[in-house]
Amino acid sequence: MAVYTEVTDEDLAQFLAAYDLGAALSLKGIAEGVENSNYLLRTEKGTFILTLYEKRVNEADLPFFLELMEHLARQGLTCPQPVKSRAGVALGRIAGRPAVLVTFLDGMWIRRPTALHCAQVGEALAQLHEAGADFPMRRTNSLSLDGWLPLFAGARARADEITPGLEDFIGGELAHLAQVWPQDLPEGIIHADLFPDNVFFRDGHLSGLIDFYFACTDSFAYDAAICLNAWCFEQDASFNVTKGQAFLSGYARVRPFSAAEIAALPVLARGAALRFLLTRLVDWLNVPPGAMVRPKDPMEYVKKLRFHQHATSAADYGWMP
Amino acid sequence: MAVYTEVTDEDLAQFLAAYDLGAALSLKGIAEGVENSNYLLRTEKGTFILTLYEKRVNEADLPFFLELMEHLARQGLTCPQPVKSRAGVALGRIAGRPAVLVTFLDGMWIRRPTALHCAQVGEALAQLHEAGADFPMRRTNSLSLDGWLPLFAGARARADEITPGLEDFIGGELAHLAQVWPQDLPEGIIHADLFPDNVFFRDGHLSGLIDFYFACTDSFAYDAAICLNAWCFEQDASFNVTKGQAFLSGYARVRPFSAAEIAALPVLARGAALRFLLTRLVDWLNVPPGAMVRPKDPMEYVKKLRFHQHATSAADYGWMP
Repeated sequence: MAVYTEVTDEDLAQFLAAYDLGAALSLKGIAEGVENSNYLLRTEKGTFILTLYEKRVNEADLPFFLELMEHLARQGLTCPQPVKSRAGVALGRIAGRPAVLVTFLDGMWIRRPTALHCAQVGEALAQLHEAGADFPMRRTNSLSLDGWLPLFAGARARADEITPGLEDFIGGELAHLAQVWPQDLPEGIIHADLFPDNVFFRDGHLSGLIDFYFACTDSFAYDAAICLNAWCFEQDASFNVTKGQAFLSGYARVRPFSAAEIAALPVLARGAALRFLLTRLVDWLNVPPGAMVRPKDPMEYVKKLRFHQHATSAADYGWMP
Repeated sequence: MAVYTEVTDEDLAQFLAAYDLGAALSLKGIAEGVENSNYLLRTEKGTFILTLYEKRVNEADLPFFLELMEHLARQGLTCPQPVKSRAGVALGRIAGRPAVLVTFLDGMWIRRPTALHCAQVGEALAQLHEAGADFPMRRTNSLSLDGWLPLFAGARARADEITPGLEDFIGGELAHLAQVWPQDLPEGIIHADLFPDNVFFRDGHLSGLIDFYFACTDSFAYDAAICLNAWCFEQDASFNVTKGQAFLSGYARVRPFSAAEIAALPVLARGAALRFLLTRLVDWLNVPPGAMVRPKDPMEYVKKLRFHQHATSAADYGWMP
């Protein structure tokens, strides 16, 4: 979440005229995250998040995201719900951008997760995977193996600006992962971006998940591998095996891993680290002037990748069969 | 408003423990403005703005700002009100910063003000000046004539990075204004930063004023001159005399200008433009890395200053006696 596109009061009044939400009372740009523009909107009828879709989001994918949020809520998951206009349509347009209003979800994200948080995230991720089982739409993961090469192609010439040797390091990883990337793992709807700022807690209990704009169809274990990267490393990029154990066993309590998934964890974690290294690299080299956004450091994922290069089995992530 | 200092859930829980506001439900950084860190906070008891004071704010000045907001509200002005802890104290500390909770004010700020908005701002500014009449505290304006020289001293060496000749241009202005700056104009509490993003409207009617962190004791007409700069120029930096007329006559309906104030308007407007040029110049040259803030363009005020240099009387601003 960030602010790339400014919304005027006239834009907003025109947009809200199609909804049954009364007049706008306040609109504040939210200074979090890196994708899309997000505003906290209060109207006479309540509090909402107004999202304007920017850069990486393909407009044709929006119905997938919106229907998925509705589907998951019907399955009992707590996540934001698209608000429909009087014409029954969730997808609108404001300030020249596709835009959606979703319900506001109370909750705080956890800046310094503990193993207790990790265990709950594991459970919630598995619940999400199960809740998506009968969702009828598919969306290819554009940020998996096939998507990494074009990302790298656009950034490789300047990669060594981040740290000398980075271009070779990433090139080597890409070649290796292309050889060993697992096929035929159980797949379905994955969140694909379940970082701490997308998970809300209240009183120590997980209260909801947000930001489904990377959700897609891919292997469940890859989603778990993303969470190992996002939740189980310390600030100094050392892996906290207690958190890994809590996350993996939390997940397995809801949806048991297959033997193939467990065997694939190290290479999936390595691929997940490369995926975030690549997008951070691109973002770092291409911060739009004036965007109120703090680009995230690609080096964090270089360090995580180095850890994964030396992992030999799921035990290195705390997995205890 | 922006986000310079991150607040963790632990920081917040510890801070809120001193208040009767229940538990935090959500905390969102606000991506607006350039001073201080601001969060929109929802607790079990309501919605608030949490402000962490940064850089330009002197902690010793905070009681002045907080008491002023309370005083103005008692006089009937709509503005945020400091929320007190159980111990009866408004000023707290969070994440190592002095911090205050204030009540949340509904309203939207106007991106493209019309003359109707300008007239209401004029009235509101005069009401503020009258409401501050019996406020017992004083605060010197650190960003008036005496404050400009040190600001310039810190930025002059790099001023020409913005545009060639800027150092000389500012130096000449400073020398001129030191000669002609008016003394003995009627003075009292002024807002000193009443830009469009600090004025809320609902349904076309002015509904409240915010951000009193530049408020100080200075001449009323200087505050009006700041508003002429902030409200009455078009995007292309041309002065809209209809807006100027609306603003000045709106003000005078509530508090008539003295002849000396009217005579001083061109030089006050020139000084006000220089004040914002200088702070923008300093900000532009010193954006903190990673601050989620869009520094404002100093050139806007170079252009405004050029207009003021050619103004010969208040008539050039639309004043009609």
